[in-house]
Amino acid sequence: MSPEPTYQFAVLGTGRIGAMHAGILARHPGASVRWCYDVDPARAETVAAAHGARATTRLEEALGDPDTDAVLIASATNTHVDLILAAVAAGKPIFCEKPLDVDLARVEELGRRLEGSTVPLQVGFNRRFDPSHGGVQAAVARGEIGALELLVITSRDPGPPPPRAILEACGGLFRDTTIHDLDMARFVLGEEPTEVYATAANRVDPLFAELGDVDTAMLVLKTASGALCHINNSRRTNYGYDQRVEAFGAEGMVRSNNHRPSEVSHHSATGTNRRDLLRHFFIERYAEAYEAEIRDFLAMLREGRSPSVGYADGHRALVLAEAALLSHRENRPVRPSEISPLYPSPASPA
Amino acid sequence: MSPEPTYQFAVLGTGRIGAMHAGILARHPGASVRWCYDVDPARAETVAAAHGARATTRLEEALGDPDTDAVLIASATNTHVDLILAAVAAGKPIFCEKPLDVDLARVEELGRRLEGSTVPLQVGFNRRFDPSHGGVQAAVARGEIGALELLVITSRDPGPPPPRAILEACGGLFRDTTIHDLDMARFVLGEEPTEVYATAANRVDPLFAELGDVDTAMLVLKTASGALCHINNSRRTNYGYDQRVEAFGAEGMVRSNNHRPSEVSHHSATGTNRRDLLRHFFIERYAEAYEAEIRDFLAMLREGRSPSVGYADGHRALVLAEAALLSHRENRPVRPSEISPLYPSPASPA
Amino acid sequence: MSPEPTYQFAVLGTGRIGAMHAGILARHPGASVRWCYDVDPARAETVAAAHGARATTRLEEALGDPDTDAVLIASATNTHVDLILAAVAAGKPIFCEKPLDVDLARVEELGRRLEGSTVPLQVGFNRRFDPSHGGVQAAVARGEIGALELLVITSRDPGPPPPRAILEACGGLFRDTTIHDLDMARFVLGEEPTEVYATAANRVDPLFAELGDVDTAMLVLKTASGALCHINNSRRTNYGYDQRVEAFGAEGMVRSNNHRPSEVSHHSATGTNRRDLLRHFFIERYAEAYEAEIRDFLAMLREGRSPSVGYADGHRALVLAEAALLSHRENRPVRPSEISPLYPSPASPA
Amino acid sequence: MSPEPTYQFAVLGTGRIGAMHAGILARHPGASVRWCYDVDPARAETVAAAHGARATTRLEEALGDPDTDAVLIASATNTHVDLILAAVAAGKPIFCEKPLDVDLARVEELGRRLEGSTVPLQVGFNRRFDPSHGGVQAAVARGEIGALELLVITSRDPGPPPPRAILEACGGLFRDTTIHDLDMARFVLGEEPTEVYATAANRVDPLFAELGDVDTAMLVLKTASGALCHINNSRRTNYGYDQRVEAFGAEGMVRSNNHRPSEVSHHSATGTNRRDLLRHFFIERYAEAYEAEIRDFLAMLREGRSPSVGYADGHRALVLAEAALLSHRENRPVRPSEISPLYPSPASPA
Repeated sequence: MSPEPTYQFAVLGTGRIGAMHAGILARHPGASVRWCYDVDPARAETVAAAHGARATTRLEEALGDPDTDAVLIASATNTHVDLILAAVAAGKPIFCEKPLDVDLARVEELGRRLEGSTVPLQVGFNRRFDPSHGGVQAAVARGEIGALELLVITSRDPGPPPPRAILEACGGLFRDTTIHDLDMARFVLGEEPTEVYATAANRVDPLFAELGDVDTAMLVLKTASGALCHINNSRRTNYGYDQRVEAFGAEGMVRSNNHRPSEVSHHSATGTNRRDLLRHFFIERYAEAYEAEIRDFLAMLREGRSPSVGYADGHRALVLAEAALLSHRENRPVRPSEISPLYPSPASPA
Repeated sequence: MSPEPTYQFAVLGTGRIGAMHAGILARHPGASVRWCYDVDPARAETVAAAHGARATTRLEEALGDPDTDAVLIASATNTHVDLILAAVAAGKPIFCEKPLDVDLARVEELGRRLEGSTVPLQVGFNRRFDPSHGGVQAAVARGEIGALELLVITSRDPGPPPPRAILEACGGLFRDTTIHDLDMARFVLGEEPTEVYATAANRVDPLFAELGDVDTAMLVLKTASGALCHINNSRRTNYGYDQRVEAFGAEGMVRSNNHRPSEVSHHSATGTNRRDLLRHFFIERYAEAYEAEIRDFLAMLREGRSPSVGYADGHRALVLAEAALLSHRENRPVRPSEISPLYPSPASPA
Repeated sequence: MSPEPTYQFAVLGTGRIGAMHAGILARHPGASVRWCYDVDPARAETVAAAHGARATTRLEEALGDPDTDAVLIASATNTHVDLILAAVAAGKPIFCEKPLDVDLARVEELGRRLEGSTVPLQVGFNRRFDPSHGGVQAAVARGEIGALELLVITSRDPGPPPPRAILEACGGLFRDTTIHDLDMARFVLGEEPTEVYATAANRVDPLFAELGDVDTAMLVLKTASGALCHINNSRRTNYGYDQRVEAFGAEGMVRSNNHRPSEVSHHSATGTNRRDLLRHFFIERYAEAYEAEIRDFLAMLREGRSPSVGYADGHRALVLAEAALLSHRENRPVRPSEISPLYPSPASPA
Repeated sequence: MSPEPTYQFAVLGTGRIGAMHAGILARHPGASVRWCYDVDPARAETVAAAHGARATTRLEEALGDPDTDAVLIASATNTHVDLILAAVAAGKPIFCEKPLDVDLARVEELGRRLEGSTVPLQVGFNRRFDPSHGGVQAAVARGEIGALELLVITSRDPGPPPPRAILEACGGLFRDTTIHDLDMARFVLGEEPTEVYATAANRVDPLFAELGDVDTAMLVLKTASGALCHINNSRRTNYGYDQRVEAFGAEGMVRSNNHRPSEVSHHSATGTNRRDLLRHFFIERYAEAYEAEIRDFLAMLREGRSPSVGYADGHRALVLAEAALLSHRENRPVRPSEISPLYPSPASPA
């Protein structure tokens, strides 16, 4: 019916997020799951069976298959760099879950090794593809509010906190959670932050302090044009996943508000207009965004264009996260160029 | 400072509503309270003292005073007609609380006696002056939604029901409460209803059935142009005074939503966006409207124009209420002309 | 992975709605599309190809296949009865799009022929499965608002009107569109309407009058308990698909509000809080409901229980639609028992 | 009727704000305006005439009158300190508009001179008395959200910017506008900020830069408990006066949203739910708050208690504004104790 080609994917990493991505690929008429690779054979088998795909624990089997058109990396974060490099070596276009890595040195080493490569690499900053947040960015980009002056990003995870093992590996609040908001800030601002101020606290659970991490934070970013951006984070709400973006300028304001499972409201002697809890967490809240980023990746493959979210986006968001961490630790504003000389300065636009 | 004249009022009837009106007049720079008349001398004294006015139980004293510029009638409903006629005889412009009377024969007799009179008579259909409902009417009148096709009026009083004495005197749900909505319907429709269908039930309190009254109702009105109007009523909510108007046409929809004491919202594990109860009842909810109708009356006095809500409006709303009652009793649609030959037919526009 | 059985479906009718249903079945882990039957072979082929199914123009091929576990009927309305009877003869459980037929005599003849049959027949009143409207019904059913006293259903289709051919076959506004609202009324009321008053107008497009149809309507339904229900309909909005349900009782009010594509709001010198147009039409607006009704049908198959929406629901909604049409034509309230002696009277609960 | 005493006020300064306060006093049954003092005799006369008060340009006449029960200071900011001291000398309780002064040295000198005084001094931080913002504080204070973790204050003035003369005298954005938000922060936090980070920009009008001022700002405050507070400011919106407070904690979130003139919403082919512009500016937006702070002051007089917003509140908000200014200038977080040794440190609670 459609002349649209169908791309066959190797899904690398078939845990919770990988299984979700496999389902999205399987449902999309322009994609199919050819390989499911995981170090855990049972996990690979299960997801492969659900989509009529082949399972393997040998990476080279999936990457070496000439019918594998592209790879989707959703494995443990510390394996991303190696899998990207292997896919690049095999010449397979790559969609990689965020973050590239939580170790900036590794990410910059990856950057050096990608130089000259023509294999497309898209990074999974899914929130850019959310109809609400994306709608805010689009309105700003088309000039609806004039030049952006104030940007406020609210980003609070529903409780309880993730398990200790995940927290230990995630790189801490700034590299794991705030990084999404830092990418959103770059996306909506349309220019690079020139300075980051961050302060944080331990309010949610003693576990965070035990791990040397924080659970509650506020940031302010500045840009060369004078736009200001605030981000606030918490690791725990009791009312759902609180995700809002508000952009303000001379010509007006545009906001994305929270999503709920239904539009039911309740009115009684204890109050009016009571609504559902917010959608619980990222897989439910950003279901449309996860589908849309894959559609965008497939469109890139068809059109032969560059990825809309690439290595530089992954690298810069991590630099900003490092700047936030340093700012918090030294209690002073930090310039991204203090973190990495590769971060573009206002005078040298990327 | 202002060249605006100050009109001195005789307030006739100084119960709860009269006292409210006296306060509004006293606060307005273009009005003052000169007389407080009430059959209960203590009641008249109290309100008079609050505003530096004279109290009397003798109507002729207030009406005979050449410095009395206008009267505001807020006495018991069954005294309205006599007070109007006395004020007309004294040549004093009249602002009269709704309804003119609950007895249609008396209202039509009043109409005959007002023929040829040049004394202005404004009827207190205050909701027309509410910024929200009035905003709906204004949007419809300026053509924002195109020709009106559907009008939905929700009008539910907060519980508990009024005391028995008030219910006995009020003429029943249709003449006491629905009459406001019927006036709102005429106001927004901009044309006369040609047919009324009403059905009602006893759901709120056995008292209503004891009195031969109903407490819950739904109506549908038609007009000559084919516009349709729905009204629903209840004598009791547990979440405040529910007052909404929704107008629909080819070019869109405009609605007035409920008013609350504050804009606070609450979010917790039991729900999000919980708001205050709605403003409790008419004195709070329509505070701005009560002030605005007096401003409009004062503007009429200054400008020498006709009242914006006059005898005909009071008469027609009552005819529609009678039509609703008959429709409910006979379980059939009723034309207003069945109730009164004075009601304008589509072919004979008022 | 899942012990859930997979039911193989024959999809009968593969036009727009049938193709949508085929996609839903294909995506569900507990279902698959085995046959696509259509009188137009190209249409059957296209949908079959998309889901790895077999295409046929011979009904008996699909129904005679022992591996066909169930049928989904989404063909032209006037073929539903024959396809249902054929599926019953073949012993295949049936999910049939609404309405059963627009001809009450045919529907009642079907009813007689289904007597004694044990083949499950579920009718596609999808709105019952919408998370918002379903949430209202659930709140009412669990007693959240006390006994239901007032129910207000707003149901307006986005314009432009459907093509003439569709309008000619659809049975008119009441049988085609209002029937959904009448089913919703029965669903939320939890008891049978005992009387229907309907009035209608031609406001949208001359085409409707040409066809002897109407395009704008208001209804009031009563029940034995004294609950009152209002429905208003239009064949055209310019702001999207307006679908709301509001239930009121002594203990409060619960409402389902409209759905929009995003949660973006815009604030500027021309107004604040401007939102998207409402989701355009039924396939987008009720996407979740279409999926949920299939999940419910599959659960019924697995659990061996009766359909949650069966023949009686299809029959009664049509009787109410006929009552509305008669009420409109004769300008009087009509009892469903005047339309069909099979409609349960208050004294003989179904 | 009421045994409530009536306090006679001298209104010192009868410009726009003084005239507003005079009107509030005149309308309140427990207050009256006895004297209107202004350096401009015409201005004093006009306001006096409106309320039957005496006008004077001689301060001692108003303060020396034994029947003057209290003073309300609404003169130019740089006269506040002198007028407060004169009223203290005359033993008259004082309600003084914010700020006490924009010069911290003068405010601290005032503090020294007030030591030992028993004359009550209430400062006009009116927003504490707004039903919406006050409702947030009350919810936090009663523990509804648990311990406060994040506080977000949005405070943006409608454009165009104030005239040059006002801007020159106002002390700049932080001392003039942000000071309200800093007081709100202290009010809701329920503890003293221990550090202020501020950054600002010139985005609105070249006039601000000419005056060495800024027009756009973001702040982050920390407290000893680890609560974090963000404030964002702009001197110009095109959609009205944007005033919101959001408090977040383990047990939930409570917010105050903006106020609008009506509850009308508009739905058309260009969008749904479009609402009015926000209430334009402080006199309209905070009308209820201005009345409530006077009610509170009168209650204080009657009850013989301390003012609910006193000298210390005025002093501390100014110290925080100075800290913000220094933070902006030196691009580093600043502790209030760097600004003034009088600011209470966490270890020495006030």
